[in-house]
Amino acid sequence: MKRETISSLGELALLDEIRRRFARKCRDVRVGIGDDAAVITPRGKSLLVTTDMMVEGVHFDLRLITGYQLGFKLVSVNVSDIYAMGGTPRHLLLNIAVRGNTPQEFVHMLLNGIGDAINHYGVILVGGDLSSAKGGVSLAATVTGTGRRFLLRSGARVGDGIYVTGRLGDSACGLHLLKRVGRTVPITFHASRNLRYPLPEMRVSGGVGSKRAGLRWETVAPLLRRHLLPEARNTATLRRAATAMIDVSDGLLIDLSRVCDESGVGARIFEEKIPISPRMEMAAKCLGLDPMTLALTGGEDYEILFTRRHGKETAATRIGEVTESETIIVSRKGDERIFSNEGYQHFSG
Amino acid sequence: MKRETISSLGELALLDEIRRRFARKCRDVRVGIGDDAAVITPRGKSLLVTTDMMVEGVHFDLRLITGYQLGFKLVSVNVSDIYAMGGTPRHLLLNIAVRGNTPQEFVHMLLNGIGDAINHYGVILVGGDLSSAKGGVSLAATVTGTGRRFLLRSGARVGDGIYVTGRLGDSACGLHLLKRVGRTVPITFHASRNLRYPLPEMRVSGGVGSKRAGLRWETVAPLLRRHLLPEARNTATLRRAATAMIDVSDGLLIDLSRVCDESGVGARIFEEKIPISPRMEMAAKCLGLDPMTLALTGGEDYEILFTRRHGKETAATRIGEVTESETIIVSRKGDERIFSNEGYQHFSG
Repeated sequence: MKRETISSLGELALLDEIRRRFARKCRDVRVGIGDDAAVITPRGKSLLVTTDMMVEGVHFDLRLITGYQLGFKLVSVNVSDIYAMGGTPRHLLLNIAVRGNTPQEFVHMLLNGIGDAINHYGVILVGGDLSSAKGGVSLAATVTGTGRRFLLRSGARVGDGIYVTGRLGDSACGLHLLKRVGRTVPITFHASRNLRYPLPEMRVSGGVGSKRAGLRWETVAPLLRRHLLPEARNTATLRRAATAMIDVSDGLLIDLSRVCDESGVGARIFEEKIPISPRMEMAAKCLGLDPMTLALTGGEDYEILFTRRHGKETAATRIGEVTESETIIVSRKGDERIFSNEGYQHFSG
Repeated sequence: MKRETISSLGELALLDEIRRRFARKCRDVRVGIGDDAAVITPRGKSLLVTTDMMVEGVHFDLRLITGYQLGFKLVSVNVSDIYAMGGTPRHLLLNIAVRGNTPQEFVHMLLNGIGDAINHYGVILVGGDLSSAKGGVSLAATVTGTGRRFLLRSGARVGDGIYVTGRLGDSACGLHLLKRVGRTVPITFHASRNLRYPLPEMRVSGGVGSKRAGLRWETVAPLLRRHLLPEARNTATLRRAATAMIDVSDGLLIDLSRVCDESGVGARIFEEKIPISPRMEMAAKCLGLDPMTLALTGGEDYEILFTRRHGKETAATRIGEVTESETIIVSRKGDERIFSNEGYQHFSG
């Protein structure tokens, strides 16, 4: 049964399954899955809408990520955009295109991952589109969100502090590690929370010559998880004092440049303030990579970068301040250099 | 310049161009393209949301459709879903994934087609996502809509008449013709309205043996147009009296089956009532195809199928009536047969 392909199941049967599994009665959903369009009744006057796609061979490699992880990540990256506006995610629409010879199991795992993310973020699946594909898997999601006050990229003012949540570069480092592992790692959202991985202890060796060293699975696993199962960061406690906000999806420098461009301001940030986890630093060095480069230009951390007036303590790390013009990064030695849009760009190279 | 690829332009430059070109100030758009999410302020309590994708090799063949037509069609198929709910389309989000070696001209034509559709339907582009692709072109759009009363698939009642707008099968016949033409036909939305095609008169010959015959371009062109540049049908004049509504995207029989399934009713329709254009009949026969089969199971007509109580005349054609159970089609000779979900299904075959 598990070896059967999606073509032997068919579109209508798959649609029925999705509907049975994800249909929810909710006050703000008048019509959900199953009609030409969903009818939602948003709370509040304004509604956030965002959409993001994930394309095989560009955003992911099916030799390295499971269907479950792909589904979870698809929802996370879209929810992250809603949080980055200071909103609360509400409704989800999915576009899923897979080849007809895709095993049914893959699609079921994809739906499992989507389901876990839906429950985690409290969103409701209200619609979507299923299609066959001739090439690779192609996924997109649209997420709506509600809120009272929305935090734009354009709100940064000269003198604001620049803050970032969590640690940066973990996801990029996790991707490098994953390529060394060279296969999928079956971490799921629930099973991995306490690092009880269903894998034997393994060593990832890297570096060259005398720097060749081993990494313990306890070091590797959380980094893999940051890449494979990113969790969007809820901004409920941050949004009150913030002036501008964005999620770090393409890399700190490129995303900070966007805030500066939209706000018509500059920035001055300090390498010594950039939050880097000891385990990422250890793993990067083992791989022969510069941790600071990963933290500054590695994408997919889905941490939140925001600006705010000085004031109370915040859980986030202050990495610099908003200036009148020029985006400058100060190295640990005190050297200054101008940065701009350094990070992942589609189509280039 | 026109030979340059999208990779030499880059994602950020393309985003800037889209933003310059499509950004609009509107009362119901607080934040449009350029932030993590759009902020819209829908008129009315409820909002329609729908999403549909178009995948190369499945929904289209780039040897047969231009970038312009693809862009126009992407918007049309999504707007059609909003009209099919009795709504008015308002906001558009796009997902565009193309290979890095795609000519810039193709992407510009795609945007031209999207732009013409945006103007035609009066929608506003508020967001989206650009991505490179390793495989084929992959497109998706999300469209929102407003309205007061929404027409579901589930509203059909026993005794209602079953109606369909326009003529059926033109698009499917157009696709067959297009495959004979074997190349793109540069019809655009405006240039083709009066059939002033920028092509020399040409003949499409088909059939076999003694049935081999020629078709004049004046016969062929409108059918090609129905396939390449479908126009979603505004339901403003139909929705008042309708009880259930759906757009004919996958084929009359499959879409009518959906209405019956959702409404818990049956249907009895008559082949002799199915609206078929003389030019489609002529072209189908020339191609050796059965016009009735094209009309009943050919997809992508984007006409509107609806049910309503008997009453005033309507611009649409009454093709049968809602019954208690069983979906029956009566042939011209009076033979009855049961139909179910006959039309295009993804993944199957």
